[in-house]
Amino acid sequence: MNKFFSILVIAGVPLSVIGSLFHWSAIIMFIVYCLTIIALASFIGRATESLAIVMGPRIGGLLNATFGNAVELIISIFSLKAGLIGIVLASLTGSVLGNLLLVAGLSFFVGGLKFKRQSFDIYEARHNSGLLIFAVIVAFVIPEVFTNTMNDQETMMLSVGVSIILILLYLAALLFKFVTHRGVYQNIDDTNKEHDETPEWGKVRAMLVLALATVAVAYVSEHLVDTFDVVGEAFGWSELFIGIIIVAIVGNAAEHASAVIMAYKNKMDVAVEIAVGSTLQVAMFVLPLLVLLSLFFPTTMPLVFTWPELISMVTAVLLMIMLSNDGDSNWFDGLVLLAAYVIMGIGFYYV
Amino acid sequence: MNKFFSILVIAGVPLSVIGSLFHWSAIIMFIVYCLTIIALASFIGRATESLAIVMGPRIGGLLNATFGNAVELIISIFSLKAGLIGIVLASLTGSVLGNLLLVAGLSFFVGGLKFKRQSFDIYEARHNSGLLIFAVIVAFVIPEVFTNTMNDQETMMLSVGVSIILILLYLAALLFKFVTHRGVYQNIDDTNKEHDETPEWGKVRAMLVLALATVAVAYVSEHLVDTFDVVGEAFGWSELFIGIIIVAIVGNAAEHASAVIMAYKNKMDVAVEIAVGSTLQVAMFVLPLLVLLSLFFPTTMPLVFTWPELISMVTAVLLMIMLSNDGDSNWFDGLVLLAAYVIMGIGFYYV
Amino acid sequence: MNKFFSILVIAGVPLSVIGSLFHWSAIIMFIVYCLTIIALASFIGRATESLAIVMGPRIGGLLNATFGNAVELIISIFSLKAGLIGIVLASLTGSVLGNLLLVAGLSFFVGGLKFKRQSFDIYEARHNSGLLIFAVIVAFVIPEVFTNTMNDQETMMLSVGVSIILILLYLAALLFKFVTHRGVYQNIDDTNKEHDETPEWGKVRAMLVLALATVAVAYVSEHLVDTFDVVGEAFGWSELFIGIIIVAIVGNAAEHASAVIMAYKNKMDVAVEIAVGSTLQVAMFVLPLLVLLSLFFPTTMPLVFTWPELISMVTAVLLMIMLSNDGDSNWFDGLVLLAAYVIMGIGFYYV
Repeated sequence: MNKFFSILVIAGVPLSVIGSLFHWSAIIMFIVYCLTIIALASFIGRATESLAIVMGPRIGGLLNATFGNAVELIISIFSLKAGLIGIVLASLTGSVLGNLLLVAGLSFFVGGLKFKRQSFDIYEARHNSGLLIFAVIVAFVIPEVFTNTMNDQETMMLSVGVSIILILLYLAALLFKFVTHRGVYQNIDDTNKEHDETPEWGKVRAMLVLALATVAVAYVSEHLVDTFDVVGEAFGWSELFIGIIIVAIVGNAAEHASAVIMAYKNKMDVAVEIAVGSTLQVAMFVLPLLVLLSLFFPTTMPLVFTWPELISMVTAVLLMIMLSNDGDSNWFDGLVLLAAYVIMGIGFYYV
Repeated sequence: MNKFFSILVIAGVPLSVIGSLFHWSAIIMFIVYCLTIIALASFIGRATESLAIVMGPRIGGLLNATFGNAVELIISIFSLKAGLIGIVLASLTGSVLGNLLLVAGLSFFVGGLKFKRQSFDIYEARHNSGLLIFAVIVAFVIPEVFTNTMNDQETMMLSVGVSIILILLYLAALLFKFVTHRGVYQNIDDTNKEHDETPEWGKVRAMLVLALATVAVAYVSEHLVDTFDVVGEAFGWSELFIGIIIVAIVGNAAEHASAVIMAYKNKMDVAVEIAVGSTLQVAMFVLPLLVLLSLFFPTTMPLVFTWPELISMVTAVLLMIMLSNDGDSNWFDGLVLLAAYVIMGIGFYYV
Repeated sequence: MNKFFSILVIAGVPLSVIGSLFHWSAIIMFIVYCLTIIALASFIGRATESLAIVMGPRIGGLLNATFGNAVELIISIFSLKAGLIGIVLASLTGSVLGNLLLVAGLSFFVGGLKFKRQSFDIYEARHNSGLLIFAVIVAFVIPEVFTNTMNDQETMMLSVGVSIILILLYLAALLFKFVTHRGVYQNIDDTNKEHDETPEWGKVRAMLVLALATVAVAYVSEHLVDTFDVVGEAFGWSELFIGIIIVAIVGNAAEHASAVIMAYKNKMDVAVEIAVGSTLQVAMFVLPLLVLLSLFFPTTMPLVFTWPELISMVTAVLLMIMLSNDGDSNWFDGLVLLAAYVIMGIGFYYV
């Protein structure tokens, strides 16, 4: 798997540079860019993991929280710069749906084919459920409903206020999880899962990989964004569909794969943490950060989704909470999540 | 009870035939048809139950899944043929509300008057809750919100897609429940509840009753549908109200009665299974099947409810999940469900 | 604390009378009225508590149910008389949000700063969750959605129907809690919390205080309502904002304080009971009573909120249920509730 990604990076990065310089066909380059980003994202993931092991769980948690969705953040910043606000919101919606339904669904399903019942930490699941309701059902729904009668400036004021609160609460959640209540709700000591492992790369090498891969992702992402309109026209895909399905899958592919592998190894706590933790990171950190960053761009981005986007996220959250709150999963739970993802995918294709 | 239904059938079927031939007053015939269907439905129920005991739990489960809502399916097909799409969706909404609120409510209430606390299988309740959220909150809500900006053809494409997924997931749920995870989540072996019982009727007799009663229901239903507009005008009832309250109660009366009797005997698992299982059958099998069948009729039926219908089902599901997820019921839980039913009834009367 | 309120009453009541007679500046009088009501409310609370101890738990429960939100009821009646229906619905929305998010949030947060984990009765929490879903998500949402296409008379008919059912179910809930299922769901006997305590005041004195404070609140409230438009203009506050944030905090300040003190003493059952119990009282008793009373006023009040009000309440209920259903709280749970309150506060400021 890692070897495959290495080859992909070694071939993809130069091809991306050459292709973009010589203006190769947008559709071919779209595929090259996507594959290269998937491979680079896996390097970022491995580097972050190595650093997390070296630096200990607290700083490791922060690192994961920052670089875990670095690819999405970078793609979004370039989309924002290009004024493609619709694609930013769509790709973050797609990231939420992809993590909650596709990643968790595949993990439950694949893990469930091997094991009759798999269990994960019920306290963690409930803690995360509370945050999912806060972020998606309170913080995303309120601006949607309240800004109906507001002008653009009031809408942006409310969006900025909500974004600041989301980020502060996300930081408070890290404080709660890694400092004040570390181990309080776990019956088994899960810290050893990090201490026992030896990092793949040393500190210096990991930081180097992280830096280089991030720069490369930035370069490729900038050019990926430019191909969207040609690709959309060629395949009959709307901006919404590209953002929600394509960009979201590209940005999260590496994470998706590792979650499913963990589920197959019966490490459901890790699989669920990747799926739900990543959702919370996007909803409570990446998205509000982009709203605040947009203040420095020509086009500001309010925290207002389209109704299909919002309702998809709300229903995905309710479904995931219902299925995960008993701390038990099986293949059927996974299938239900996947079925929900397919329904939304069909919906976004036609919308 | 059974004797009463036998008399009703012996009197009702000939009266229905004669009355429809000689064009008796629509209002009198409406009452005759309704009573006859209620009685016939009880025969279908008893025949299915007998066959389920004879054939073993797996085929029995399938039989129940198919014939459990045969009456609703038949009435709906005739309504579909008559182009009365509004009444089909309304009567299926009514069936969902009736099962979740009226049947479960009466069961909890009546059972609770005799027993201080009644309990039922918590795993089964949670499994069903996940399916309720999937069917009603994901699969019904998504088309409603997404089709706002779609044309008729796109709406129908999305409806067909969602319907196919609903049916496939329903079949997967049967596979999960009766094959791969049979007994995995039950601490007590509930298979004996079927094995211990002796069937009321033998195999041949049960199949004969099933066939005859189904034909009779079909005949009566076809004529019942024709009386709707006269009855609606005479009583000032809207199409919606007839579908949601009247047709739904007629189609489910026999089931309702047996659920309440089970609750009174403290067999809450059976009572809840009838109420929630029947809801899931309507939502995940009968309704999507009708959407697909409508492709062969002059008027196609998209999976798009009116807002009052959809919101009623969504709130009913949330309420039922909250009240049933602790695996414990009492008279007050029942009263809450009944109160919700009455509120919706008043709403549909005025809407 | 009590001494402070005594001084406030001794100074506030005469000042209120004199100021209203001599038409002092509306803004100054607004502050005087608010402080006086807060102080008087604390006297009503103490008198009710004393009477509850003297009279035993059943009548005590009824007394609490009646006088617990006496201040809100009185302010609302005068607003109703003045035709300020928007402010009545807004202040009751504010009361629901204030109790669920601000009071419970502060209680969880302050209690959580002292104790790592606090627990409260899980059965009580679930029972209350069911009622919250019934009241807010069924009984408030249904009229909102159904009355879209209704005329004023039908809207009022549905509102009256829903209100009657809410009050009947509230009475049934008291019957369930204090009569038929008293102690059935409690593992620890919580009746001694009332029996062990000695009342602050004797029966006669408590009734006298209750009567006098209620009359004084009525007098001050009537004049408070008159200052709303001047104050709103002066501070740029909308009718909605005054109702939801200001009136709700004034009407509940005394209750808020005692809930937080209880949480600090690790008596979480009492703190949660004040927060959620008070919410249910407002939603299932005060509000429907006002709808029925409005029939005798020139302007009738339907049970139809603005969308921002309704969605705020619905999301607050879902968040509170998710956070409280495990019977366990900590500072972070409290912070999540407070963050939701702030988000809604910003929203109502701009809306």
